[in-house]
Amino acid sequence: MMNKIQMHNCTKSFRAMRKTIPQGSSIGFVPTMGALHDGHLSLVREARERNDIVVASIYVNPTQFGPNEDLDRYPRQLERDTAVLQELGVDHLFCPSDMYGQNHRCFVDPVGFDDLREGRARPGHFRGVATIVAKLFNIVQPQTAYFGQKDAAQCVLIKRLVSDLDMDVEINIMNTVREDDGLAMSSRNAYLNQDEREKAIILYKSLQAAREVYESAFAGQLPMNANVIRDTVQATLETEPLVNEIEYVSVGSKETMDELKEVDTDGAVVSIACKIGKVRLIDNIILGI
Amino acid sequence: MMNKIQMHNCTKSFRAMRKTIPQGSSIGFVPTMGALHDGHLSLVREARERNDIVVASIYVNPTQFGPNEDLDRYPRQLERDTAVLQELGVDHLFCPSDMYGQNHRCFVDPVGFDDLREGRARPGHFRGVATIVAKLFNIVQPQTAYFGQKDAAQCVLIKRLVSDLDMDVEINIMNTVREDDGLAMSSRNAYLNQDEREKAIILYKSLQAAREVYESAFAGQLPMNANVIRDTVQATLETEPLVNEIEYVSVGSKETMDELKEVDTDGAVVSIACKIGKVRLIDNIILGI
Repeated sequence: MMNKIQMHNCTKSFRAMRKTIPQGSSIGFVPTMGALHDGHLSLVREARERNDIVVASIYVNPTQFGPNEDLDRYPRQLERDTAVLQELGVDHLFCPSDMYGQNHRCFVDPVGFDDLREGRARPGHFRGVATIVAKLFNIVQPQTAYFGQKDAAQCVLIKRLVSDLDMDVEINIMNTVREDDGLAMSSRNAYLNQDEREKAIILYKSLQAAREVYESAFAGQLPMNANVIRDTVQATLETEPLVNEIEYVSVGSKETMDELKEVDTDGAVVSIACKIGKVRLIDNIILGI
Repeated sequence: MMNKIQMHNCTKSFRAMRKTIPQGSSIGFVPTMGALHDGHLSLVREARERNDIVVASIYVNPTQFGPNEDLDRYPRQLERDTAVLQELGVDHLFCPSDMYGQNHRCFVDPVGFDDLREGRARPGHFRGVATIVAKLFNIVQPQTAYFGQKDAAQCVLIKRLVSDLDMDVEINIMNTVREDDGLAMSSRNAYLNQDEREKAIILYKSLQAAREVYESAFAGQLPMNANVIRDTVQATLETEPLVNEIEYVSVGSKETMDELKEVDTDGAVVSIACKIGKVRLIDNIILGI
């Protein structure tokens, strides 16, 4: 019989438990904002397979939402999420109600990330992400933490965070999990109505078009102009009338997400953000090996 | 016979050793920039008395020096420092040559600290301090870290850092150690010539004058106007011709270092920065209990 998942509603309670875990045990950590979908669950399964102890966290972090973003209506379903995590054999769930004291002053500032395409669209977002992840890593003290490739710039950020602040945590990036039609799993997909949901596959289609252009150039025509890829993605997105705002189409470096002029055999991260109806969605694929 | 101090010149080497320390052992940590004086040594002695393992670090952190500050000529004397630490029974010395990789992006940003008096005098200084201390704490993973009260704003900062980023480290602030005549120990005292050294006691005298004013007001005349204290300190400093620049005289809150209008029985931190000849010195005392 499976152990019951242990819930910790505050840092103090989690810390007390953490100190009882023997030094030799491996701890895998999956930080989330809840509203769990198959993407999260693939991270949890990987963590479960590879570690003695699995910790998940659910915390909708206010500092990573902009003033006009969806903090208030971000989906919250703690009971359902807990049951799912219990089912997958998670040992500990850290689900604090607040992570910022009244006099909070220190933030982790990832210089330059607000200049990335996703950063410009969401100023302050990556500072909030870096800060909360640093806090969670300090509380949970895992050997390995698991993140999904869907948030491409976030993956680059977390690796920099760990390296820059000398955190002793291994970062494991897992492939984006997709619905049968190719739509990337996202908690925000719940905002889509049926028609929008069907048309949202245009994001994946546009990325597939990017891959085709890149791969057809692979036989001797590389490096290619990155704008050829950008234009292909843009044109594909524009074929769908429900796409009412294309925030960005980015062809960036795999290491830094900085925009590329040319794409070589090294490849690139092609990432997009656009609105289907009123719902902001992001997706990305990695070109090259 | 005393064990020989173990030196670690890079993070990787320290980390490998750190993993061999049993979970139950207490680790006391004294981070320094070297050029050790009796102030540092009092921290080391306290750490030695209270912990199973004592770790010291020596690293002259470039990010906490301004462009016009004394990074290049900051005193460096690793051999002598190592011998002193060995003598006091320090187990491990972490003395890396570089702590910032080429692509370093993430800094710990302590919002508001550049608006403090010491922060205005040294823009970016506290960001550098917060970043390096976070890095060192993540590498050393001590139970307790020791700092001197001499850097008053730094003490407030470090406590905020640990609290804000949920670092599991106890911060122990030790009293400022002084020369016989009252001058606060500082690595920068080495820059003073003999005449300047003698006249530098004016800093301590001005703080003692502040204490007298405060304590004489204690019998029924509190709260008192904080400017009475500021003016007393300023006037005392101005009696010494070798004081050629008074950067600030601050009467601040013990919790936040924010400037106070009135001082009550709760007290205050009175802190000063001024130049004796060309040498910038700081000092402070705590009024009240």
